[in-house]
Amino acid sequence: MLVCVGSIAFDTVETPEARQEEILGGSATYFGFAASLFGPVALVGVVGEDFPEAHLDAFRARGMDTAGVQRLPGRTFRWAGRYLDDMNVRETTDLQLNVFAQFDPVLPEAYRDCAYCFLANGTPALQQRVLDQLHKPRLVLADTMNHWIEGARDDVLAMLRRVDGIIINDEEAQMLSGRKNLVAAAKAVAALGPRIVIVKKGAHGSMLVVGGHLFLLPAFPVAEVHDPTGAGDCFAGAFMGYLAGAGRASFAALRRALLYGTLVASFDVEAFGVERLRRLTLPQVEARARKFARMLRV
Amino acid sequence: MLVCVGSIAFDTVETPEARQEEILGGSATYFGFAASLFGPVALVGVVGEDFPEAHLDAFRARGMDTAGVQRLPGRTFRWAGRYLDDMNVRETTDLQLNVFAQFDPVLPEAYRDCAYCFLANGTPALQQRVLDQLHKPRLVLADTMNHWIEGARDDVLAMLRRVDGIIINDEEAQMLSGRKNLVAAAKAVAALGPRIVIVKKGAHGSMLVVGGHLFLLPAFPVAEVHDPTGAGDCFAGAFMGYLAGAGRASFAALRRALLYGTLVASFDVEAFGVERLRRLTLPQVEARARKFARMLRV
Repeated sequence: MLVCVGSIAFDTVETPEARQEEILGGSATYFGFAASLFGPVALVGVVGEDFPEAHLDAFRARGMDTAGVQRLPGRTFRWAGRYLDDMNVRETTDLQLNVFAQFDPVLPEAYRDCAYCFLANGTPALQQRVLDQLHKPRLVLADTMNHWIEGARDDVLAMLRRVDGIIINDEEAQMLSGRKNLVAAAKAVAALGPRIVIVKKGAHGSMLVVGGHLFLLPAFPVAEVHDPTGAGDCFAGAFMGYLAGAGRASFAALRRALLYGTLVASFDVEAFGVERLRRLTLPQVEARARKFARMLRV
Repeated sequence: MLVCVGSIAFDTVETPEARQEEILGGSATYFGFAASLFGPVALVGVVGEDFPEAHLDAFRARGMDTAGVQRLPGRTFRWAGRYLDDMNVRETTDLQLNVFAQFDPVLPEAYRDCAYCFLANGTPALQQRVLDQLHKPRLVLADTMNHWIEGARDDVLAMLRRVDGIIINDEEAQMLSGRKNLVAAAKAVAALGPRIVIVKKGAHGSMLVVGGHLFLLPAFPVAEVHDPTGAGDCFAGAFMGYLAGAGRASFAALRRALLYGTLVASFDVEAFGVERLRRLTLPQVEARARKFARMLRV
């Protein structure tokens, strides 16, 4: 079983070419749409009274278990952001935690035996409260962000010692390690505890460090990026979804998972919100995998 | 025969950790050291009276033909630059063209029949004077830079219509095409004339667009970058050197050439100036190619 603990949100997204208001978003949402391509996934999150049941139905229709999604009095988490210029730069223009501020993840009993778990970005203290509830997970990966690395460094370090892997972006890896060079940064992060370190470089691809080995992938080239929101969570979702589906986390499986993470993220950015992901099928991902392999052959 | 027309210089390089003065540099120099791993290469350039014969001996010892290197009264071209922070940002701190200001490339008769030619960065007018002298080249690739794209755009466009390919960096591709997205930018540059477009992204790898096909490679990961100077010219040198050695420029050969360009550039940055290149052997490059293939396997 694969469990993801993260946010469910309404996003307002502005790009140089368009703007969409209050569309379905959040880390658990993106993770779920990506992971569910490979098998069942259970979401743990919180929504407010304003969250339409239809969205939860859409989750369930894609094989996501929503028993862990709490509904609390109040409004759902809201995020608004704007992408500048070449879509590689983003600024948050509004953030309303709402019910997410009271989020205390309680895993349904059935989830506690899960073998695979992803802790999406959240306070490292909250991430550890989830870890406390897991019985014998086989593979736990976590995300984190600059905000916690700067503001709650000790908690982040404690969390890192308890997880198998971490998925972060280049800036976060540099901040966490104090190293500018990304290879050095990724290895330094591994030295902090996690056996698996994945560094996402956006349009520049990703790097996986595991057991002293290093694997690399460019991003799949997308000529028209419409909305990069959620690409990182899709990456994590496909990565974990593939591993959970395959039931193993060998070097070969991790490499393959990196490929699926890369590809599903590349579909995500082609449309606003989860629009492209809703329609995405595994055969489409496999077709892109073959195309990508031809681009990479040396 | 492979001919490179470019600069031969004394570089003063400063990084956050070290500084070296008046070391051997220049685009033709780096190109030559890289290309000569794969076969003979002829250099066309200019040096001043202060240029030691020992450097020319070093070129010749590596199989470079220096009959096209003119010696003019005056001082050799000097460049000084500083790398900041993570080595991805460079500023030029001093530039003395010296004899390079009078450089009028005259190809020795034997060079005019060359099948492969690389026009390193220089004025697009100068690059076209070289093209005028070539009889029936099979493959001509050129470099250019922001300075000419901004200041002599029409000349650059005229040059682009006369070459088979162009090797530029991401910023130059964006400037030339007016497109921010690199896939779109590379395709737009191809629409300006060159059948082959290579976009170098420094530590983030490279992209090759040819005949509507797109190939990608990440950079080979180097944990300790000591001096990025010349990496782009090494990339071009190994790319062209491999093609000239193989005697073909099929899709498969171009893809392979991209790999060699990537790898030789990765050796270059490991030491100051041409230090690492002087000692570099093809078996070392091949060993790294095998290591790289393992990192990329999906």
